[in-house]
Amino acid sequence: MMELKVDLGERSYPIYLGEGLLKDCAAYFDKHAISKRAPLLVVTDESVARHHLQPVMDSLTAGGYKASSFIVPPGEGSKSLQMLEKIVTAALEAGLDRKSAIVALGGGVVGDLAGFAAASFMRGIAFVQMPTTILAHDSSVGGKVAVNHPLAKNIIGAFHQPEMVLYDVTTLQTLPQRDISAGLSEMIKHGLIWDADFVTWLENNREKLLSLDPEALQYGLYQGCKVKSLVVSQDERENGLRAILNLGHTIGHALEAVAGYNELLHGEAISIGMVGSARLAMKLGYSEDIYTVTKRILQSFGLPVRLPEQYDTARIMSALMHDKKFKEGTMTFIIPTAVGQVEIRNDVRREWVEEVVEQLKREA
Amino acid sequence: MMELKVDLGERSYPIYLGEGLLKDCAAYFDKHAISKRAPLLVVTDESVARHHLQPVMDSLTAGGYKASSFIVPPGEGSKSLQMLEKIVTAALEAGLDRKSAIVALGGGVVGDLAGFAAASFMRGIAFVQMPTTILAHDSSVGGKVAVNHPLAKNIIGAFHQPEMVLYDVTTLQTLPQRDISAGLSEMIKHGLIWDADFVTWLENNREKLLSLDPEALQYGLYQGCKVKSLVVSQDERENGLRAILNLGHTIGHALEAVAGYNELLHGEAISIGMVGSARLAMKLGYSEDIYTVTKRILQSFGLPVRLPEQYDTARIMSALMHDKKFKEGTMTFIIPTAVGQVEIRNDVRREWVEEVVEQLKREA
Repeated sequence: MMELKVDLGERSYPIYLGEGLLKDCAAYFDKHAISKRAPLLVVTDESVARHHLQPVMDSLTAGGYKASSFIVPPGEGSKSLQMLEKIVTAALEAGLDRKSAIVALGGGVVGDLAGFAAASFMRGIAFVQMPTTILAHDSSVGGKVAVNHPLAKNIIGAFHQPEMVLYDVTTLQTLPQRDISAGLSEMIKHGLIWDADFVTWLENNREKLLSLDPEALQYGLYQGCKVKSLVVSQDERENGLRAILNLGHTIGHALEAVAGYNELLHGEAISIGMVGSARLAMKLGYSEDIYTVTKRILQSFGLPVRLPEQYDTARIMSALMHDKKFKEGTMTFIIPTAVGQVEIRNDVRREWVEEVVEQLKREA
Repeated sequence: MMELKVDLGERSYPIYLGEGLLKDCAAYFDKHAISKRAPLLVVTDESVARHHLQPVMDSLTAGGYKASSFIVPPGEGSKSLQMLEKIVTAALEAGLDRKSAIVALGGGVVGDLAGFAAASFMRGIAFVQMPTTILAHDSSVGGKVAVNHPLAKNIIGAFHQPEMVLYDVTTLQTLPQRDISAGLSEMIKHGLIWDADFVTWLENNREKLLSLDPEALQYGLYQGCKVKSLVVSQDERENGLRAILNLGHTIGHALEAVAGYNELLHGEAISIGMVGSARLAMKLGYSEDIYTVTKRILQSFGLPVRLPEQYDTARIMSALMHDKKFKEGTMTFIIPTAVGQVEIRNDVRREWVEEVVEQLKREA
């Protein structure tokens, strides 16, 4: 078992990483003085519930906790105000009060949704994260929680830090191959923005990671969470530094918007986006090396680096404008300058971005 | 013009009280460095819009601000997640971003709703309060914002402090008499929990207040806001002291729930509740004086002190149980012990409360 502290002053919390944590989760609830008098609500989705809900409920019950569960359909569509209202109905019917906790058992969608429920129920109650995807190593650190609005993703939300994150790597064994690669995409990003040694380790342990070797996974998740927590500790409310976590995300979000949210997985979209950022680095005068390394590592992990031809460049540019707004012809991008290093640049020209989108359609 | 600082560390903000502030509101926006580049959204209700929206929009436009407005139906029914979604639609269509502010122009409903929109839009943007009722002197201090759920009032919300409160007492001139008395009920409560001199002043200035004399109103609102801000400064997140603000509210909320939210105004319900609390004080051994004074002052302001016969005691008790839960036959109440003083007592017996509810039906 590994433990990592996310350092946020009085809102600091630990991430526990290990095998079999879910079936012993009550012990961690005890350790963090989660109230046994006030009922808990475990929020999860249908896919996760099938494999992992029972052991969690059994452990909580055996440990003397009163826990109910609420199961949402899987997928981004559950991140809505309508689903929030249903969770609050379940919370009221289960008798949750200010001393209660809401537990997110699942990936990013469940974490964001249940986290916003915890942030807003009775103006904020305790929150526990139990991620069950690789991708969620990213979303479970930093306290950003939200639901979507029909016009915009993650637009209604809060900053609400959990009491703890319980990351049971055995849950990852049931992930489909495509989700494994897509999840590792954020892990690679964490290396690329902050830690060249971690990038080297990722390349050397590629096969172990892709085959879900528990020890390698645990270490990779630990390092990924560590980079994110170091960044977030310095800029909890995203006033500056935290923006570097968006490497590949500006183009990535635009691709997701144009593709529809189910065609390209988030990790796949930011993989293409990171190659785009490396191409923008060249436009700004940096060497081709960073582009070569970025592309090589993403490809070796089975991630897409080429933008499918059918995505219309004009629509991508329009989605980019919507996301960030060009100011007088330039916009802000996170630019990789070397392996493990990025810069926040606000002088990226619109025409460069357009050229790069075209180039992305021709990546080999 | 009077100014009061609500002292909350880096979240401190001023309350400006005076005549004609709305038509010069842009000057206050300038003073607080509200961004002119990012659009503003003014949220108000149909009744308030009729009288006060145009001067606000005119001032903002003349001052170089880009402001849109969003008008909700008046009444508690607008405090819903559905209305929140509509406000977010309006905010997105108006192009609001992280530097934008949402402005609440209206009473408690508009303040709570627009405040929660500001708390959650893009995970929190700036918020400006412009109260237009006497009652809102209470809700505009302290940062509690929320919407209702079909099963419970104010159950989905946040703590989100405004940048400033602009309290234009001229807006109060259009209030109906019943709303005036009901609004003064919270002002009287602030005297009763904290400041005996203010209670004396209230009694001496009753006629001026009821006839909306601007100078008396301004002073009364100032003192009411001051009591609330002193309490909130010591306990922003309601861990202890802040509970004293609930004098009369436990019984009051139960009456509102049983009556339906439109039959009894909030200020009327807590007026009856405050008489009930004074009766509970006698059960706990305190002198009859506090009961006599409480009842006298509330009656003199035209507020109800007797519970209408038709309200079923069993239903009131059941609503009380739902609100707070009796623990082993006792529950927590705010008990007045002298004029300007209260205690938080958790040894109030269920049967006393039931007796008091019956007695309230026979108040002369």
